[in-house]
Amino acid sequence: MNAAAPVTVLGLGLMGQALAEAFLREGHATTVWNRTAAKAEPLVAKGARLADSVADAVAASPLVIVCVLDYDAVHQLLDPVAGALDGRVLVNLTSGTSEGARETARWAAEHGAAYLDGAILTDPDGVGTADAVILYSGPHAVFEAHEPTLGLLGGATTHLGDDHGLSSLHDVAVLGLMWGVLNSFLQGAAVLGAAGVDASTFAPLAAKSVKMVADWVPGYAEQIDNGVYPAVDATLNTHLASMNHLVHESEFLGVSAEFPKLVRAMAERSVANGHGAEGYASMIELFRKPSGTRE
Amino acid sequence: MNAAAPVTVLGLGLMGQALAEAFLREGHATTVWNRTAAKAEPLVAKGARLADSVADAVAASPLVIVCVLDYDAVHQLLDPVAGALDGRVLVNLTSGTSEGARETARWAAEHGAAYLDGAILTDPDGVGTADAVILYSGPHAVFEAHEPTLGLLGGATTHLGDDHGLSSLHDVAVLGLMWGVLNSFLQGAAVLGAAGVDASTFAPLAAKSVKMVADWVPGYAEQIDNGVYPAVDATLNTHLASMNHLVHESEFLGVSAEFPKLVRAMAERSVANGHGAEGYASMIELFRKPSGTRE
Repeated sequence: MNAAAPVTVLGLGLMGQALAEAFLREGHATTVWNRTAAKAEPLVAKGARLADSVADAVAASPLVIVCVLDYDAVHQLLDPVAGALDGRVLVNLTSGTSEGARETARWAAEHGAAYLDGAILTDPDGVGTADAVILYSGPHAVFEAHEPTLGLLGGATTHLGDDHGLSSLHDVAVLGLMWGVLNSFLQGAAVLGAAGVDASTFAPLAAKSVKMVADWVPGYAEQIDNGVYPAVDATLNTHLASMNHLVHESEFLGVSAEFPKLVRAMAERSVANGHGAEGYASMIELFRKPSGTRE
Repeated sequence: MNAAAPVTVLGLGLMGQALAEAFLREGHATTVWNRTAAKAEPLVAKGARLADSVADAVAASPLVIVCVLDYDAVHQLLDPVAGALDGRVLVNLTSGTSEGARETARWAAEHGAAYLDGAILTDPDGVGTADAVILYSGPHAVFEAHEPTLGLLGGATTHLGDDHGLSSLHDVAVLGLMWGVLNSFLQGAAVLGAAGVDASTFAPLAAKSVKMVADWVPGYAEQIDNGVYPAVDATLNTHLASMNHLVHESEFLGVSAEFPKLVRAMAERSVANGHGAEGYASMIELFRKPSGTRE
């Protein structure tokens, strides 16, 4: 597979457009298709070929990338032309679940296509930059064969493993971290806002603190993998005392206490399970159980 | 106040010891006191003077720093010697609530002491380093007069404002961010762990993602302060679709879905309030309301 191998991009939402542009920038013969053909115009102006039909688009390149709203949309698009997939490599960059990915892999195999599932952990503006994280899962040999092309989409392109579900799982895990940071920033902004402090005043300290905690993550991960949770900084009992403060301040200032209360409830349960003198990583044992169960 | 002004440290837990050591390193005449005198021995070996009593310790220095378990412990320690505080500057680095800080400020004023409340956002090892964040609130003139001494404890020493409650509020807001990062990392580690991925394998991607989101915080803060929440990256509707995936994957893999469900419930409520086409920062309106109320 040479570096300017032909490639097809199905679905020209903001992300699909960014993908096609990244290929065009590097001189790939790029075929595009979209339900609303007008969206292809800026790409055609940059040298893309607009296919007449999905079948035409699939036939145009050995590497077919699909990036649409959800997996249902993937199947609506490709089921009618499944016969044309034989011998192609289908790369699905649509967001979905791990079962959806595995099921689509089985479906692709039935039609003779190799399949990679992927997750784009950047916004459309980031596609093609050195920092852009794009994760793939599926057969390693297939990824390797197309890495020169797929690698153009992001400097931090990674193959996670053969299990097609891994990219979706990493995707939601990373999104979960995003919501974790954003919600706790909103909580802090609400608390401080009620005391007259602007969110922008809090932001630099918040960002600095978040980055500091990010640096602790590998250490906690090691404890989790080892199943031993020494309290290197603070014990869970100490955390719990401070959690009470956050619940109290939130209620006292009349802002939402829902998140602080769940944070505290989880820590209380973990302490009740005997982890009070251990470090925060001991909470993993609670996160590993289905909701509402005990260790 | 010259740079080697005498200083007293009351309470020699790990943090109190680190504070006293930082002063000793810089050549300050440092008087220490602790309920259990033995804890003072390493400091005495480094040149500290162990006071015979709390009253003796308070009398020894114009600047008196207290760092104990909680505000009850502060009062148990200082109430009996309140008369000795007249003319002193009391700096309370004990963790507590904003009302506790304001009440202690009133109590100190009644006894003729100036009062600063502070929060140490680093572990004991970090005290005295360039990165250490130590926050103070209370009269600015008092902070300014003692900044050369207090600044030795951390390179990122900051005065937040005259309201004595501000340091405690910032403290819990920052701790909230810490729990936000750690809990969402534990959630991701639980999900990926159930699919056979080690926490240590996930950690570098998690840390990188958290740092990326930290860089977005100032932009979100600006939106919050302006009360306008354009969807620069994704709409709340798009977030909600992905939140469904995280809930689903967590339940499918048999790990806790409590956090993902609350994350989703908050977003659903915000969408129901008409913010679906806006960005994530629009959620601030929900965080600002007492739990269980509607916009």
